[in-house]
Amino acid sequence: MIDYTRELDSYLKRLFPITRSITGNGNRETLKILQEIIPLEIKEYPSGQEVYDWTIPQEWNIKDAWIKNSKGEKIIDFKNSNLHIVSYSKPIHKKMKLGEFKEQLHFLRDLPEAIPYRTSYYNENWGFCISYNQYQELFKEDEEYEIYIDSELTDGALSIGELILHGRSSKELLISCYMCHPSMANDSLSGVLLTSFLAKELQNLNLYYTYRIVFIPETIGAIAYCANNELHMKNIKHALVVTTNGGPGKFGYKQSWQEDNFINNMVEDVFQESEEEFIKYPFDIHGSDERQYSSQAFRINCITISKDKYYDYDYYHTSLDNLDFVKGEYINSSLGLYYKLIMKMEKNLKFKNTMPYCEVMLSKHDLYPKTGGTINQLIKNSSKNELDLILELLFTCDGNKGLYEISKDLKIDLDVLYEIALKMKNKYILEIVE
Amino acid sequence: MIDYTRELDSYLKRLFPITRSITGNGNRETLKILQEIIPLEIKEYPSGQEVYDWTIPQEWNIKDAWIKNSKGEKIIDFKNSNLHIVSYSKPIHKKMKLGEFKEQLHFLRDLPEAIPYRTSYYNENWGFCISYNQYQELFKEDEEYEIYIDSELTDGALSIGELILHGRSSKELLISCYMCHPSMANDSLSGVLLTSFLAKELQNLNLYYTYRIVFIPETIGAIAYCANNELHMKNIKHALVVTTNGGPGKFGYKQSWQEDNFINNMVEDVFQESEEEFIKYPFDIHGSDERQYSSQAFRINCITISKDKYYDYDYYHTSLDNLDFVKGEYINSSLGLYYKLIMKMEKNLKFKNTMPYCEVMLSKHDLYPKTGGTINQLIKNSSKNELDLILELLFTCDGNKGLYEISKDLKIDLDVLYEIALKMKNKYILEIVE
Amino acid sequence: MIDYTRELDSYLKRLFPITRSITGNGNRETLKILQEIIPLEIKEYPSGQEVYDWTIPQEWNIKDAWIKNSKGEKIIDFKNSNLHIVSYSKPIHKKMKLGEFKEQLHFLRDLPEAIPYRTSYYNENWGFCISYNQYQELFKEDEEYEIYIDSELTDGALSIGELILHGRSSKELLISCYMCHPSMANDSLSGVLLTSFLAKELQNLNLYYTYRIVFIPETIGAIAYCANNELHMKNIKHALVVTTNGGPGKFGYKQSWQEDNFINNMVEDVFQESEEEFIKYPFDIHGSDERQYSSQAFRINCITISKDKYYDYDYYHTSLDNLDFVKGEYINSSLGLYYKLIMKMEKNLKFKNTMPYCEVMLSKHDLYPKTGGTINQLIKNSSKNELDLILELLFTCDGNKGLYEISKDLKIDLDVLYEIALKMKNKYILEIVE
Repeated sequence: MIDYTRELDSYLKRLFPITRSITGNGNRETLKILQEIIPLEIKEYPSGQEVYDWTIPQEWNIKDAWIKNSKGEKIIDFKNSNLHIVSYSKPIHKKMKLGEFKEQLHFLRDLPEAIPYRTSYYNENWGFCISYNQYQELFKEDEEYEIYIDSELTDGALSIGELILHGRSSKELLISCYMCHPSMANDSLSGVLLTSFLAKELQNLNLYYTYRIVFIPETIGAIAYCANNELHMKNIKHALVVTTNGGPGKFGYKQSWQEDNFINNMVEDVFQESEEEFIKYPFDIHGSDERQYSSQAFRINCITISKDKYYDYDYYHTSLDNLDFVKGEYINSSLGLYYKLIMKMEKNLKFKNTMPYCEVMLSKHDLYPKTGGTINQLIKNSSKNELDLILELLFTCDGNKGLYEISKDLKIDLDVLYEIALKMKNKYILEIVE
Repeated sequence: MIDYTRELDSYLKRLFPITRSITGNGNRETLKILQEIIPLEIKEYPSGQEVYDWTIPQEWNIKDAWIKNSKGEKIIDFKNSNLHIVSYSKPIHKKMKLGEFKEQLHFLRDLPEAIPYRTSYYNENWGFCISYNQYQELFKEDEEYEIYIDSELTDGALSIGELILHGRSSKELLISCYMCHPSMANDSLSGVLLTSFLAKELQNLNLYYTYRIVFIPETIGAIAYCANNELHMKNIKHALVVTTNGGPGKFGYKQSWQEDNFINNMVEDVFQESEEEFIKYPFDIHGSDERQYSSQAFRINCITISKDKYYDYDYYHTSLDNLDFVKGEYINSSLGLYYKLIMKMEKNLKFKNTMPYCEVMLSKHDLYPKTGGTINQLIKNSSKNELDLILELLFTCDGNKGLYEISKDLKIDLDVLYEIALKMKNKYILEIVE
Repeated sequence: MIDYTRELDSYLKRLFPITRSITGNGNRETLKILQEIIPLEIKEYPSGQEVYDWTIPQEWNIKDAWIKNSKGEKIIDFKNSNLHIVSYSKPIHKKMKLGEFKEQLHFLRDLPEAIPYRTSYYNENWGFCISYNQYQELFKEDEEYEIYIDSELTDGALSIGELILHGRSSKELLISCYMCHPSMANDSLSGVLLTSFLAKELQNLNLYYTYRIVFIPETIGAIAYCANNELHMKNIKHALVVTTNGGPGKFGYKQSWQEDNFINNMVEDVFQESEEEFIKYPFDIHGSDERQYSSQAFRINCITISKDKYYDYDYYHTSLDNLDFVKGEYINSSLGLYYKLIMKMEKNLKFKNTMPYCEVMLSKHDLYPKTGGTINQLIKNSSKNELDLILELLFTCDGNKGLYEISKDLKIDLDVLYEIALKMKNKYILEIVE
């Protein structure tokens, strides 16, 4: 896989400043920029659409917002940071004493230089997020302030981006990232960029699975997508929920809801083969869009490979989750791991012996391995040779076990076994059942 | 639960002297006294009725019985102890030398002051049970004795008592005790009284399960009851076989036939929460009426909580199993444990998320917990708060796992989880499937 | 079981010299001699018949073969050892220098006095097998040799022997041995003779299972037999693949493909009860005709009890696997183990309580055990008596577990439990379901 560090850094810079939310023109602008990388289709789900227990809210757009002190000086300005505004704040223009709007000011005493990230999607409200330093320096109890938010809540739509890469099978893997965060780099944006470049790579390959790749706002976007693509979603075999993979910290992965699902072992194999240490996060019901994809109706096993995982780094959901913290090279290294994982999944097929009655006459099908063939060179540290593995596959492949599980049982590299299985498939001795 | 020690002591005194057997007027008299406590229905299954592999025998009643020595002195008198007569002894009036009826005399060399308890229901026979001391003092090889048994075997009926407490569900739990023993206090009578007062308590509750509470003679009564209520018995989910719970010794419980059935863990939880030590008796094919209820056609998991369990105390099946040994306070403490067990079973329901597609929008249903609510006060020593538990239940409750199992998985008190589940049920987010 | 050592030694001597292969008159001659022991039916599958992925080859017969040196001396003579000729060698008569036919000479540098065993069934070819000593002494680079093989490849048939012993059940056990090796005593011949005398023993017994006993050439014979008896082969419950059981070395057994199948434990019990040490060979895909019988279409659990197992002794597939190495007494001791195994399998039936509702009234069926009866004398080292075991069987036998598994659960000897079960069956309380 080629190194995308440079492109990643360049797109980080362009996409970071855009004001995104669960709806709005910032999201459309983001998706349009991503179309430079991959041929995303943009879909719009209208405000008011009922999606399961939820309703797609009005579209929110904002032009400007500030707070002026009694001297008329702009002390807080949306133009400096789009995090200053609680997402989905309603419009307001009013003079008030601090005491009257103190509850609308959000800051973090423990991280005094950081602006927190806050939203109020389903409670009509407004608010400003500021650093604790700003709060202490700029606000006084008795002073009167002019509050201005030039936002708009209108019947519009929720925008999502979608790319389907058709493989040889109609069985699907889902790759999902969320793009609803404004200027935060690790949470949301790193996932959006990793997904884009991963999709770009996959486009060039002859794939077995069909890949459904989606760029959505978190929660409501995932719910809306499921509701609008219900049958497809029930056909998904596994999902990758891509987020927070661009920090300087440790790699980790969040397990899928069924702890013994093979995908969890496979991720660990990828880490081990890449000689990367990693933190294992057990599945829990909190998290990102795996909450929707693993819900009872879908029960998809989803994993997330992270580098500075959400919840677990100090700058999480603040203005410090920025481009000083996140780098293209970090995203690129996470991208490499996802790519390796997919390469493994592509080989974990279920084969079936087409001649289940007694043994196959190998010589007749020209399957008797030549001593010293290329495959035998690949089989290292094993007491088994190519002939043994052909016989093992003929014996074992009854359509029930995936090749990954068989490779574990035989203590043989999946790549080697896949190559042998393909050779047998080409002789019509094995067929793919899944 | 209120303390029934005093009532228990009073009923022990009234019921202890009555001559009970597998049939007869003593059983009817016993059931009539119990009707003072609970509205038992008395049912009569006629002699000769075929019940599976068995036939209900003739009814046995006895008025008097004695042995006189050659001087005409009554040396053994049924009026002193109804244990003196082998249950189901046929009538006899005859003079005999000791050598002629020695085999009809039963005594225990190892417990010389105790009269043993013997029956001969299906072998027409007669016999006297005496203490070994009596045997040595009162009987001489060459003396002639006058034997008198004024009993009657007639076509009559086998009497049972039944109380159905209808719950919200038609699914049933069975509570079964046997009343076929004459003057013995721990074996049989403690179970009869515990069951009566347990039923009295349950009457006042709004129950989920329907409770089938039966007072029967052991073995033939249980078989007759199953045969006459076959479909109902196939609808039983669990059974409590109540016996030998009134001694001064240790608590214990006999496990149900499937060792891994949750009811066994639940009983142990009750002991632990009550800070009571207990003996664990593994299931075995011997025992009481669980032999019938666990047979292949029913396969009910039955447990018995005991205090001085049958087989395991010295006075078992002798005249020393009397009111010096058994006390109302012991029965009352066992009653408390059964009650706690039932309270747990009542909460071990299977819930199902009514909205399995993606997440529920909690705020819309007013399910977002207020910080510091009452439930949160109940959740101690847990890293999870009410919101976490709501989300866990939405994720997990698919109708397959009972709440008890879920509470174990989450390491959360069943009572707390039940309260949350009920709250969600009231919002129609969860429904009870079982 | 009687001691067959003498007969075994006598038949070893008669059968050892015959030239056998996968087809040919040597096989017919062998089967005819075996007909003296058991009433084998001889079947002929014609050359050219398609059997799954294979085709039955032409029949091969050989009359003579030799190599003469330039002086006209026969230095290698088929009449001295039929191993001198690669099986299925085509006819040839030609003078050649050593350099021209060196590749047609096979010998073993590591075992210089042994003639190796070689075949070329499906590659038209010819060759001589000689000892390394012969090679060094008798062959010189520049000398010219006269090569003579008087063999014939004609449309004929593949011969097999079959004996069906009909038991009370139509369920079948397979006993399979291969007879395709020429003068080798442990590999092939020991299996043929053990199978013959085992069949002779079984003939005299009142058997539960039906026994399908086959004498076939390895691989192609097993495949041809499966193809010609497909439905029967799908009805086989277990198979014994009998081979290499006549050496002086250690006992061992090769496990069946499902490691946890009861037959593997049963074989180990046989060894332990016979106080014989043994080597455990895990299942692997190499081996003998279990390769066919365990293939996906049949998936039969097959075991092999061996004494000097194939692959594992030095003389394997050489002229040293002869009557100095193999003795009738060794085969006889292996035969005893197979016999004990079959006696166990015959008792591992699945019984079902015919009265699943509540308890059976034992006295009514005259099933109450007499104290000190013969069965109780058999029950040693157990806390259970006959009554306990009757009750256990009534409780447990629901047609799902075999008696062997139940005997393990109860820690009771299978023979004892079988005797009790039969007694209950005779009272129509249990019935055999499998």
